[in-house]
Amino acid sequence: MYHIFNYKQKFQLESGRFLPEFQLTYTTLGKLNASKSNVVWITHALTANSNPEEWWSGLVGEDKIFNPEKYFIICANVLGSPYGSTNPLSINPDTGNKYYHNFPEITIRDIVKALDLLRQYLRIEKIHTLLGGSLGGQQAVEWAIQQPEFIQNLFLIATNAQHSPWGIAFNESQRLAIKADRTWFSYSDDAGLKGMKAARAIALLSYRNYQTYKATQQDEHEKVADFKAVSYQNYQGEKLVNRFNAFSYWYLSKAMDSHNVGRIRGGIEAALARIKANTLVVAIDSDLLFPVCESKILAEGINNCQLSVVNSLYGHDGFLIETQQLATLFKNFYTTQQLKKEIYEYTN
Amino acid sequence: MYHIFNYKQKFQLESGRFLPEFQLTYTTLGKLNASKSNVVWITHALTANSNPEEWWSGLVGEDKIFNPEKYFIICANVLGSPYGSTNPLSINPDTGNKYYHNFPEITIRDIVKALDLLRQYLRIEKIHTLLGGSLGGQQAVEWAIQQPEFIQNLFLIATNAQHSPWGIAFNESQRLAIKADRTWFSYSDDAGLKGMKAARAIALLSYRNYQTYKATQQDEHEKVADFKAVSYQNYQGEKLVNRFNAFSYWYLSKAMDSHNVGRIRGGIEAALARIKANTLVVAIDSDLLFPVCESKILAEGINNCQLSVVNSLYGHDGFLIETQQLATLFKNFYTTQQLKKEIYEYTN
Repeated sequence: MYHIFNYKQKFQLESGRFLPEFQLTYTTLGKLNASKSNVVWITHALTANSNPEEWWSGLVGEDKIFNPEKYFIICANVLGSPYGSTNPLSINPDTGNKYYHNFPEITIRDIVKALDLLRQYLRIEKIHTLLGGSLGGQQAVEWAIQQPEFIQNLFLIATNAQHSPWGIAFNESQRLAIKADRTWFSYSDDAGLKGMKAARAIALLSYRNYQTYKATQQDEHEKVADFKAVSYQNYQGEKLVNRFNAFSYWYLSKAMDSHNVGRIRGGIEAALARIKANTLVVAIDSDLLFPVCESKILAEGINNCQLSVVNSLYGHDGFLIETQQLATLFKNFYTTQQLKKEIYEYTN
Repeated sequence: MYHIFNYKQKFQLESGRFLPEFQLTYTTLGKLNASKSNVVWITHALTANSNPEEWWSGLVGEDKIFNPEKYFIICANVLGSPYGSTNPLSINPDTGNKYYHNFPEITIRDIVKALDLLRQYLRIEKIHTLLGGSLGGQQAVEWAIQQPEFIQNLFLIATNAQHSPWGIAFNESQRLAIKADRTWFSYSDDAGLKGMKAARAIALLSYRNYQTYKATQQDEHEKVADFKAVSYQNYQGEKLVNRFNAFSYWYLSKAMDSHNVGRIRGGIEAALARIKANTLVVAIDSDLLFPVCESKILAEGINNCQLSVVNSLYGHDGFLIETQQLATLFKNFYTTQQLKKEIYEYTN
C-alpha cells in the first residue's frame, strides 16, 4: 500500500542549503504487531522504487522470507527519486517552478535524515531488520550509525562504508555522458535523456562483468557489426529512459559519491564502531563495483558482525538476482541470533 | 623518421565498400641490414601514433631492447587514425569533401590489409619480430594468420583472438555517449567532442581497475564533492579532445568490435593454427578489458607459443607502463629461441 509522508518544514541539508519542504512516498506491507517488534525496513538502490515486492520479489511477499503475514515491511522512495518523492522535477514551492538544475545537492546523510523523519512520524522505535543493497546498503549503514539504538538486525548487501574512487569515476563518466547531451542544460523534464541512456549503459558495465557478458551476450553467428552486446546496451539504456529522468539520475549519483560514514566522525573505523545492531554483511564474489574488499572493511569495523560471500555470475546485480542465496543467509543468521539469545538467557 | 605511403588505387574493404585510395604515415627507426633480417614491426593501439619512441619509450630507443642501432623498426599509423593516415577527416577524392560520417566502416582485417600493402611496397619479405598490444595485438595476430610465412617472432600483448561481448559493450557505451552529443551529427571536424570526452573517461575505466583508482585517486581529505577521481576523468577526457577526433574514435572502436580471427576461417582454433611464428603471448594479471583468459585462448591455439603473465597495478594500461617486465620477457624469449636453434643445429 502506497502512502505519502509530507514534511512541511524547512529541511536543512548537509551542504548548508535546504529544501523548503519535502515528501516521501512509501510502501507498507503487512501490519505492525502489538509489541511493535516486527518492522522490516528496506532501503532501495539507485533507480528502484518504494515497492520491494516488485524489484526484490524473491525476498519480499507471501511465502518469502519477508512475508507480510509476519512482518510490517516499510520501504520509502528515496529523496531525489522520481517515484513519488521530492526530486528535481518537483515544484519548488518558493518559486512555483520545477527545481531542475536548481535542486540542491543531497548526500546519503540527507537521504537518511529524511528517512528518519518518516520513522519518527510513524512512531517506530524498533526496527527488527534494516536491510538494503548497493545505494540501499549505503543508507542502511549510515542510518545504523546515526541511530544505533533502535535497529536490531542489519543486513548490508553489496555495499560499502565509503564510495570508492573507482565508483566515483564510474559515476563521473556517466555524468560526462549526460553533460555531452546539450539538451541537459534545458529546463525540461526530458533534458539529457540521450545522455542518461549512455549513462545507464555505462552503469550496466559496472553492475555486471566480463563473464556475465560472455555467458549472456555472446553472438552465435559470425558478425562484423550489430552484435548482441550492442543491442543489449541500447535496450537497457532505453528502458531507463522510459521510466526515469536525467536529473534524478544525476543527483542520486552525486549522493552516492558523497557516501563516507567516517566523515566528521573521526574516520570509518570510529563510525562503524557505533553500530549496535547484529549485522550481516553480504558481498557478491564477482562484484566489480562494490568488491568483496569493501564488505571486509564493513565487517571488520562493525561489532557483532558476520561476513558472507554470495557466489554469482551476475556481479553487482547479484544482489537483485541471487535472492535464494540471500534468503538462506538471512534465515541462518536469524537462527544463529536466536540460538545466541537462548544460550545467553540460559547462562545468565 | 616519418614517411608517407600513398596507395593510389581502389582499396576494397571487407564490407564490400571501398576507399578510392588511402595513405599511411609510418615511422622508421634504424636501418635495414644487408640480410634484411632485422625488421621489427610494431602495430599500435587505439589512439596512438606511428612513433613508438613516444608511447613505448621503455621498449624502443637507444639502449632499449628495440634499439635502432640494431633493428630496423617500422610502425605505421593505422588506417582510420588521424596521425597522418587516411581517416574520416580526410578528403574523399571522389567528392572533394571530407568523409566524416560517410567514411566506410573498416575492420581489423582491412587495417592489416593496408599494412601488408605497405610491407609489399617496402619489399620486406621477413619480419624478425612483429609486436603490438591491445588493438595493436589484434592487428598483429590477424596479420600473422594472413601471412604466416614471413613473421619469425610474434609478441601479442594484452590482446585477444576475438573481441569479447564485454569489450563490445564497453565500446558501444562509448559510442552512445558520442551519439548523445548532438554535435556528432554535424559535418565538422569537432563534431561529437564532448561525447568523445565522456567516451574516453569510460574507456579509462576499462584500462585500469578498482585497485588502480584506489592507489592513485583516493582523496586525502574528507569531501562531499570535487573528488580527485572526478578531476581525473575530466582531465583524461579533455586530453584526448585536444589531440583526437570523434570520427576516428568511432570508426576504430567499430574496427575493434569486428576483431575475430576465426571469421570465415572455420573458427578461432583453425585460424590460430595457421600461425608459424614463434609466439610469445603476454597477459596483464589485472587487465579487465582483455583478461588473462583471452591470452590463454591465444596461447592454446598457437603452435610454438609461450604464455607469460605480467604483474601490474595498472590493469590493461600495464601494456604501456610495465615496459621493464616486458623487456625482460622479450629478452628471455629471444635467448630461449636462440638456444633452441643451437640445439636444433647441433642435433641435426
